[in-house]
Amino acid sequence: MTNAHLLEKIQYVIDTEVISKQPNLLYDPIVYSLSQGGKRIRPLLTLMGCELFGGNVEKALYPAVGVEIFHNFTLLHDDIMDQAPIRRGQPTVYKKWNENTAILSGDAMFAMAYDFLIRTDSNFVQRIIQAFNRVAIGVCEGQQYDLDFETQDHVTISEYVNMIRLKTSVLLGGALEIGGIIGHATDSDLKHLYAFGENIGLAFQLQDDWLDAYSDVEKFGKIHGGDIAVNKKTFLYLKALELANDEQSGQLKHYFSSTNFDEKEKFNAVLSIYNDLDISQHTKSEMQKYQDIAMKSLSSVLVSEQAKQPLKTLAENLLIRQN
Amino acid sequence: MTNAHLLEKIQYVIDTEVISKQPNLLYDPIVYSLSQGGKRIRPLLTLMGCELFGGNVEKALYPAVGVEIFHNFTLLHDDIMDQAPIRRGQPTVYKKWNENTAILSGDAMFAMAYDFLIRTDSNFVQRIIQAFNRVAIGVCEGQQYDLDFETQDHVTISEYVNMIRLKTSVLLGGALEIGGIIGHATDSDLKHLYAFGENIGLAFQLQDDWLDAYSDVEKFGKIHGGDIAVNKKTFLYLKALELANDEQSGQLKHYFSSTNFDEKEKFNAVLSIYNDLDISQHTKSEMQKYQDIAMKSLSSVLVSEQAKQPLKTLAENLLIRQN
Repeated sequence: MTNAHLLEKIQYVIDTEVISKQPNLLYDPIVYSLSQGGKRIRPLLTLMGCELFGGNVEKALYPAVGVEIFHNFTLLHDDIMDQAPIRRGQPTVYKKWNENTAILSGDAMFAMAYDFLIRTDSNFVQRIIQAFNRVAIGVCEGQQYDLDFETQDHVTISEYVNMIRLKTSVLLGGALEIGGIIGHATDSDLKHLYAFGENIGLAFQLQDDWLDAYSDVEKFGKIHGGDIAVNKKTFLYLKALELANDEQSGQLKHYFSSTNFDEKEKFNAVLSIYNDLDISQHTKSEMQKYQDIAMKSLSSVLVSEQAKQPLKTLAENLLIRQN
Repeated sequence: MTNAHLLEKIQYVIDTEVISKQPNLLYDPIVYSLSQGGKRIRPLLTLMGCELFGGNVEKALYPAVGVEIFHNFTLLHDDIMDQAPIRRGQPTVYKKWNENTAILSGDAMFAMAYDFLIRTDSNFVQRIIQAFNRVAIGVCEGQQYDLDFETQDHVTISEYVNMIRLKTSVLLGGALEIGGIIGHATDSDLKHLYAFGENIGLAFQLQDDWLDAYSDVEKFGKIHGGDIAVNKKTFLYLKALELANDEQSGQLKHYFSSTNFDEKEKFNAVLSIYNDLDISQHTKSEMQKYQDIAMKSLSSVLVSEQAKQPLKTLAENLLIRQN
């Protein structure tokens, strides 16, 4: 099936099964959150993971939506923790309602996610829940490391990569794995498929870091330097600190000690150090490393090249060329 | 097995399996929450539900602890929503750490609960998760109604009973049901067992309402009138409003409109109206009604009287005699 067709099926289940009821203050924010769109990349991966092995996507449809509900649950709670007022151009749930509502509706979404995940053949259920629990606990650990790093003086690159792996990448791997389970994949193929998803996730997150400093604004419409403005310890910053001489290191730490600088001046000063240290190329190399691991993992899955093509295409579309 | 023996097994799993690791700020609050004790009534019910049908309690042990972890998760999040600084004589997690920690550690506990729930024979897993999901979503709905009622002018007794059913009683029913599933109970017996737990829960919660106004302080060590002081719409208050004449109704609403009254004076005035309307007896009758349904449900379970005795004794101990 085409991705458009799979996305249509996902949207149909969301539209017909995620509906408001009493008590409205619990369910309205859930419908609001799920109706705001997003790329639906995670449930799509679940269906594609199932199709990769010739499985019946109908049996993966509710679990796929469960993965999407879980993802949206994490956004509700993360937005409280990060005090983020806007998401997808709309007020976040805690802003539109209040913190208690975002906590409680989020909790209900977490339970709903499990309810959708088990709506498939009963012989898949234990393995689905096992795979999903690893993901859910990993995502919580990743969010905690992310919060810790905000106030932690020294963060190594391997600590940072582990954080983004947990916070964002394990869910991509897990989404594929759950689809693979329903497609009757072997344990060995499930491992390779999971590794493909996790490493694509790492490459994608590093690309996100890169885009903040180097994207062509006209091409991507993304405003430059948001991470630099809020002193976020991204791969770029940590790599720069690793390579910097004493003077550069002092300057970087100076600029990342406050949010009161003129944004344009700060961005230009930091970018100039990044450029002196060739940070753009270092980041691209790191991205390429994870992309290569991902593609090698996919090539180890014992199905036809033709069956793998949709996942390859999706990965290529996610990882746009910057050079 | 004796309850003491079952509780020892539960404690052993908690002590050996709920331990801190990295990131500490995620796991320390979880260990703190689980190590504060509490009566462990819910996991005990799971083991007793399993034993009722001659099941192997070892297979119910991890699911039982999963139920307790879930219960403690709800306390972490409820304490934020209710801004409750103290629980079991200790600072609550959001007070000892902060709100973000209580949100995120709570989320991790929710995922851990599911992880423990499926650590049993795989053929039980789908039914356990189905039963548990109903409980988890019900508890969220109950908490939302409880929050709604704080600001809602008119609450009926049936709305109130439905709220306490969802917020506190479905988990008692579900804890027993999960044990019963592992004990290979029939669907019909599971329904009766669930109904026993839910109705004991309702009677217990109504007893809690009654104790706030009528307990013998010396006997139970509970301070009088906490619900009245904070204008909580308990069964007593709602029943009184239902039976009150215009003058009594006006007085009750007056006293429940503010927390600035002298506590002693307010308690005495409200209690005097309660006594005029025979609210103590009305509450006891309502408790008795649910206790009777519970006992009738237990008597419908098709196992020997001897096997039921431990659950009967537990129910009698929970529902102390007030007359």
